[in-house]
Amino acid sequence: MSDLSEAARQYARQNAERFRHELIEMLRIPSLSGDPAHAGDIRRMAEWLESHMRDLGLDNVQIMPTAGHPVVYGEWLGAGPSRPTVLVYGHYDVVPALMEDGWHTDPFEPTEKDGKIYARGATDDKGQLFIHVKALESYLKTAGRAPVNVKILLEGEEEISSPNLVPFIEEHLDLLAADVCVISDSSMRSIDEPAILHSLRGMTYMEIEIHGPSDDLHSGLWGGAVHNPALALVEILGKLYNPDHTIAVPGFYDDVVPLTDEERAMIAKTDLTEEQYKSSTGVPAIWGDADYNIRERISARPTLDINGLWSGWAGPGPKTIVPAKAGAKISSRLVGNQDPHKIFELFKDYIDSLAPPTVQVELKLITTGKPALFPFDIPEMQAASRAYEKGWGAEPVFTRGGGSIPVVAEIAALMNIPVVMMGYGLDDDGLHSPNERYSIEMFERGIETAIVYLDELAQSSL
Amino acid sequence: MSDLSEAARQYARQNAERFRHELIEMLRIPSLSGDPAHAGDIRRMAEWLESHMRDLGLDNVQIMPTAGHPVVYGEWLGAGPSRPTVLVYGHYDVVPALMEDGWHTDPFEPTEKDGKIYARGATDDKGQLFIHVKALESYLKTAGRAPVNVKILLEGEEEISSPNLVPFIEEHLDLLAADVCVISDSSMRSIDEPAILHSLRGMTYMEIEIHGPSDDLHSGLWGGAVHNPALALVEILGKLYNPDHTIAVPGFYDDVVPLTDEERAMIAKTDLTEEQYKSSTGVPAIWGDADYNIRERISARPTLDINGLWSGWAGPGPKTIVPAKAGAKISSRLVGNQDPHKIFELFKDYIDSLAPPTVQVELKLITTGKPALFPFDIPEMQAASRAYEKGWGAEPVFTRGGGSIPVVAEIAALMNIPVVMMGYGLDDDGLHSPNERYSIEMFERGIETAIVYLDELAQSSL
Repeated sequence: MSDLSEAARQYARQNAERFRHELIEMLRIPSLSGDPAHAGDIRRMAEWLESHMRDLGLDNVQIMPTAGHPVVYGEWLGAGPSRPTVLVYGHYDVVPALMEDGWHTDPFEPTEKDGKIYARGATDDKGQLFIHVKALESYLKTAGRAPVNVKILLEGEEEISSPNLVPFIEEHLDLLAADVCVISDSSMRSIDEPAILHSLRGMTYMEIEIHGPSDDLHSGLWGGAVHNPALALVEILGKLYNPDHTIAVPGFYDDVVPLTDEERAMIAKTDLTEEQYKSSTGVPAIWGDADYNIRERISARPTLDINGLWSGWAGPGPKTIVPAKAGAKISSRLVGNQDPHKIFELFKDYIDSLAPPTVQVELKLITTGKPALFPFDIPEMQAASRAYEKGWGAEPVFTRGGGSIPVVAEIAALMNIPVVMMGYGLDDDGLHSPNERYSIEMFERGIETAIVYLDELAQSSL
Repeated sequence: MSDLSEAARQYARQNAERFRHELIEMLRIPSLSGDPAHAGDIRRMAEWLESHMRDLGLDNVQIMPTAGHPVVYGEWLGAGPSRPTVLVYGHYDVVPALMEDGWHTDPFEPTEKDGKIYARGATDDKGQLFIHVKALESYLKTAGRAPVNVKILLEGEEEISSPNLVPFIEEHLDLLAADVCVISDSSMRSIDEPAILHSLRGMTYMEIEIHGPSDDLHSGLWGGAVHNPALALVEILGKLYNPDHTIAVPGFYDDVVPLTDEERAMIAKTDLTEEQYKSSTGVPAIWGDADYNIRERISARPTLDINGLWSGWAGPGPKTIVPAKAGAKISSRLVGNQDPHKIFELFKDYIDSLAPPTVQVELKLITTGKPALFPFDIPEMQAASRAYEKGWGAEPVFTRGGGSIPVVAEIAALMNIPVVMMGYGLDDDGLHSPNERYSIEMFERGIETAIVYLDELAQSSL
């Protein structure tokens, strides 16, 4: 470990409380990317980050427009062209959070309790992206320089599947050019079991809507002779799965690369017990494809979930209608080598085959993301492994991630660099759920690990 | 026709515009019974009716408490004990109405257009109950007396299935004592085809809720190993019907009294063509049990509808969750001799048999109503038939109603009197739907018919 990184780590420890309060400031801004009503908050969040990075001494800091929400960019290239350049990617946008979903505290008034900060975005991804900002600050405010060049790219549309990031990268390939990309937007199963992801699932996110009568009808006047759209919907969606919990869409599994015995043995080491599974989720019994263990089901196998359902009257009291329409959001997590657009076509064909003539059925594609897979014996991955050992204090495992960071596969392909996913969250941080939280200890150990990672990268032959 | 009724009819014609404006005043009050937020409006509606009936010269006018929303009562008994007494029942409460459901005008700012008044409650039941108030006024303001004694009972909980009306009637049997009950809360298929209902469907209204994980889960972290509650819901609800559109709940049809050939021949006369059916509903194709014609399906056969569905995220943009829960409102329209509570038990057994161990399934009973059936050769029904001939100007048909007025069977049983259902609405008035409307011509012809009915009752031997 260099003196440079040791001084930076000491600085990070001494400034831990201030770092935490700065994070809390960020978390107060409800930067929801999926809701046009929050466009002003997105802007405010971008301005906060721009101003903050400029204050820390980063160069070329700017809010860069896209066709949607802007990118915030900053760089420090003082290590010079002979040293590696790392591109840090993070996202400053968050998913919705409503008190009535079960939050115990205001999701945008961060609350510290038992060593955790409760707030929407705490772990996904404001807490984790901030780790890299604070790691770079710790170098710049001590030695006045970092061991490698650092570029920071923060986007505001990750939670709506980054519709504008690919064109942005394509347009700024020179500005963004780097030897490796590091992303912290994932998690480990316990604080002593850090994980580096070498694979992510992709996604096909769809919306189905069924239209029946022109208006809601009185069920007493028309019930019995009208195909209820909510009924048509459940009849169709009820056929998405086979009785053995495999997905019934014909051809769905055709392009899935089978897991090797070697990888299955590695995955088995991080499998959950039924007990761990139940206590993490609160469900009464295990479910899924019995040919695969729990860890495989949630990370290495493709899935299909109904994310939302709506029809008719959901308020208090009875309302005796045949609803005019019914809809659902459905999404599939994909693995290599499934193609999200091909999967959408398969869904479309299947649902068309189930659609009765008594209603109108429409399936729309909302977003897609490709699955990603990297080897883990390359220097950029091995440097990350050493950073956890030295900075975090535990040897990491290489695992597949069940979630999707749609741009990972795109960044790798467009920039021709590996993407190292160093997650500093916990599996049960409740991201996308009520009471999302982030452990203050994880935040602080994350900063030290990120400091060491820059040092280890400098000592690798990239 | 007596001079008394002729004078009353002239008065009604001369005061038609004022009557209409009074109705519009009533329609401005959003007296939703199913939503506690509108309790004040319910009270305001009751007070308006009390004050109005008192001004017209009714006696013993009062707002009478129940365990829920109050009853408004008024009477005129000046015809004396040798004359028949008619009990008018109506309801002043309405179902919800939201602009976003597709209203073209504010549902509580009545709008006149093309001879119709658009407002929630216009036809169901404010317009129709007011017909009887105005008929009685027309007698009292001309001759100073009516040909029979009249009692008016207006309740505020019909749209939530009248949970407190039976105890109210039981407690006030002497006050309410009458020879016949008349209810105008139904419809005819066209203005020249008036109908008297001799049967109504009953109801079992239920809510199913499925609980899976304790909180919404990230579909990337847990998708594939958790039984999605929305999926479990659609899998269960998708098995409610058989492929031939009969209801799959075992035993559901056991107590249904088969239609006789004679009644089927009568019903066939009022059947809808596929063209009429499609233009009334806007659906692309006919649906239902092919063993019965459309009119039978919507009036003489039991049904099952999903009235609402909810789960997870229904807002804009994608949200990648496994929802913690999913639910639906489901209701069955019943015919003689189905028992609503027995039907609930059959649903419960069936849904229990479908419930998987991977989620928690709860079925709750929300409301019930018994089906009703009366003979149509009795004097009270025949007087109604003559009233339509003379007052409306067309001979009515006796039909079965597909809707439910839960108290009809209860009033008949508790008071031992027939209930004559003289509907003054149109089948396509859009009740319970956006843009509910009431024809001004129907309102005015209704008042004249109601005037004649009192006269015809006086001349019947009850």
